[in-house]
Amino acid sequence: MLQKPYLMVPGPTAVPERVLQAMHRPMINHRGPQYEAMFKEISAGLKRLFQTESDVLAFPSAGTGALEAAVVNMLSPGDLVLAVSTGVFGDRFAEIAARYGANVEKMDFAWGTAADPVRLAERLAQDENHAIKAILLTHNETSTGVMNDIEALAKARGGHPALIMVDAVSSLAAMDLRMDAWGIDLVATGSQKALMIPPGLGFIAMNERAWAAQAEAKMPKFYWDAQAVKKSLAKGQNPYTPPVSLFFGLTEAIKCIEEEGLANVFTRHRRLRDMLRQGLQALGLEPLAASDVASPAVTAVKAPEGIEAKKIQKLMREKYGITLAGGQKQLENKIFRVGHVGYVAATDILVTLATLEMALSELGMAVELGSGVRAAQKVMMEG
Amino acid sequence: MLQKPYLMVPGPTAVPERVLQAMHRPMINHRGPQYEAMFKEISAGLKRLFQTESDVLAFPSAGTGALEAAVVNMLSPGDLVLAVSTGVFGDRFAEIAARYGANVEKMDFAWGTAADPVRLAERLAQDENHAIKAILLTHNETSTGVMNDIEALAKARGGHPALIMVDAVSSLAAMDLRMDAWGIDLVATGSQKALMIPPGLGFIAMNERAWAAQAEAKMPKFYWDAQAVKKSLAKGQNPYTPPVSLFFGLTEAIKCIEEEGLANVFTRHRRLRDMLRQGLQALGLEPLAASDVASPAVTAVKAPEGIEAKKIQKLMREKYGITLAGGQKQLENKIFRVGHVGYVAATDILVTLATLEMALSELGMAVELGSGVRAAQKVMMEG
Repeated sequence: MLQKPYLMVPGPTAVPERVLQAMHRPMINHRGPQYEAMFKEISAGLKRLFQTESDVLAFPSAGTGALEAAVVNMLSPGDLVLAVSTGVFGDRFAEIAARYGANVEKMDFAWGTAADPVRLAERLAQDENHAIKAILLTHNETSTGVMNDIEALAKARGGHPALIMVDAVSSLAAMDLRMDAWGIDLVATGSQKALMIPPGLGFIAMNERAWAAQAEAKMPKFYWDAQAVKKSLAKGQNPYTPPVSLFFGLTEAIKCIEEEGLANVFTRHRRLRDMLRQGLQALGLEPLAASDVASPAVTAVKAPEGIEAKKIQKLMREKYGITLAGGQKQLENKIFRVGHVGYVAATDILVTLATLEMALSELGMAVELGSGVRAAQKVMMEG
Repeated sequence: MLQKPYLMVPGPTAVPERVLQAMHRPMINHRGPQYEAMFKEISAGLKRLFQTESDVLAFPSAGTGALEAAVVNMLSPGDLVLAVSTGVFGDRFAEIAARYGANVEKMDFAWGTAADPVRLAERLAQDENHAIKAILLTHNETSTGVMNDIEALAKARGGHPALIMVDAVSSLAAMDLRMDAWGIDLVATGSQKALMIPPGLGFIAMNERAWAAQAEAKMPKFYWDAQAVKKSLAKGQNPYTPPVSLFFGLTEAIKCIEEEGLANVFTRHRRLRDMLRQGLQALGLEPLAASDVASPAVTAVKAPEGIEAKKIQKLMREKYGITLAGGQKQLENKIFRVGHVGYVAATDILVTLATLEMALSELGMAVELGSGVRAAQKVMMEG
């Protein structure tokens, strides 16, 4: 049977047709006035999405590149860094800092749970000499479907001078992240999640404290040098050749987000999550994350007893055209993940649940067909 | 909430992304070798879709243009024409013939029912002098969701020499129509239904008997002159400027259809119909057409007692992004129609049913949420 593809992974996410169309344009000179006008418009838009007055710097890179840029611009070899990790991406942020010679202290939380602000506050209270230079946080832990409470974690810093650096790769523009209001020093994200354009751009925004740290940071850098990017930015340019098509798309994607309204976008993501979780619950499936820390961007689901997660993914993809993500590291084949970040509508959740019901039934699980859909419909109708 | 549009009307239908992409090309000279090669490839492909050895002639026009071309190329003013009608489009075919001076005898069947081959055979048997020059048939009556049995109707002609002219605008490439094997003299269709490209092209195919009639037909014509089109066709050209982008798209659309396989395309359309009808039945809704004559391309549904069809359409469109078609003429506001022709997948039917359940519930009907979806899932899983 003919299928229509549903890309229900937490990135790269579906790109709206109007964004794809906007990208389909001839190249322009990235040193000319046309590019400059576009780039300045984009830079202003990104500040609104980052909820900051600080500049947002763009790198031609994956989201991981933005994390590397964050590390090398803030830190020097030997710096003590407290890396708060709730999963694969928290670990990655820590690993990048370690590779560049930071003295990384991990603060791990069980996968599927959120970082505890109380534990963070306690650790900082012990650090009387203020040896900790930076705290690495993950806003949305994509590997487990957990949203960390950045506002509370930032507050837990209290009077400690450590920089707060947030990996917002899969969260920015999907869930509220008030960089300035919450006192976050650095926010990093990527293009291929809630920004709804293809992969290829990483972004960091740095506040004044971060820029002061940048001036002292001694980790080696050329490509990721924030000073160079900031200097070019003032002229509406990039220090090296930017992915022009992605910027065409980003111009349109920012319009999409702002036409919907950032607050409405956040509400939609929570609604999609709630539809999905209610539907899963009706089917007797258990999300990895508890409801109070459940991510509005991605839901990790425990495979039911006796059914391999990969078999569910395979059947969903091959028979129904629905692409889900798998589990990573110790969660491999134990969970599957449903991305609902970016250009996702309620109907996508209905399709995911309806096909999941069939797939689980075909894999031998006792499923009342339509019951997951019904639970999601109820959430949808309340809205 | 952000919506993704579902165009569930019986034309224009959804255009596959790869067809849209194929259309997005610079213009070429329609008198040059590049066009000629493309047009010859298309002409060969259309013959396979029409299931005929005869040439398929293309007109820059709506489907209605193809019907007009059919009439003016086959008939002369004063000719007796038996117009078999089961709805709006049967009436239209008759009206075109009448406007050009044919002596039209209508054979009407109640809307929602199919044409009866026995009644046709009886009428032809009375026509001892063979005064009837042509029989106008509608394969798929889009206004009522009825599929007429063209094979049986063509057989009912028996030894009578009347030409059989079939309006296949919403049926060709959605349901089996064996032009040569069933002895059909003329088949007319349009681009915007199962051919999965945008509106703008009409097609007719004529067999040898039809060409003989064409040589004698005296209705006035210039634009619709089949001789001119056929003469150009031999040179891989059109007599006047063709919609080049649509031909780019048609090249790709024929590939889509043939990759899926014409027989599989027919099976899919029947499956989509069955999913929808089972779902509707579970919700207590009644299709206009009985199951033995139900169209694989479009389903007309009686609005439930006390609920205006237009209110259902409005709510579906505005709240859920699902566009349905309304009733025409005496069926206005009494039915709504769900198109499932062309680029339609099973997931589209699931979404249509899930949102219809919510819309009906919101309009006060007692609906068990998920029950229509469940009935459709069962059909889907059997396949």
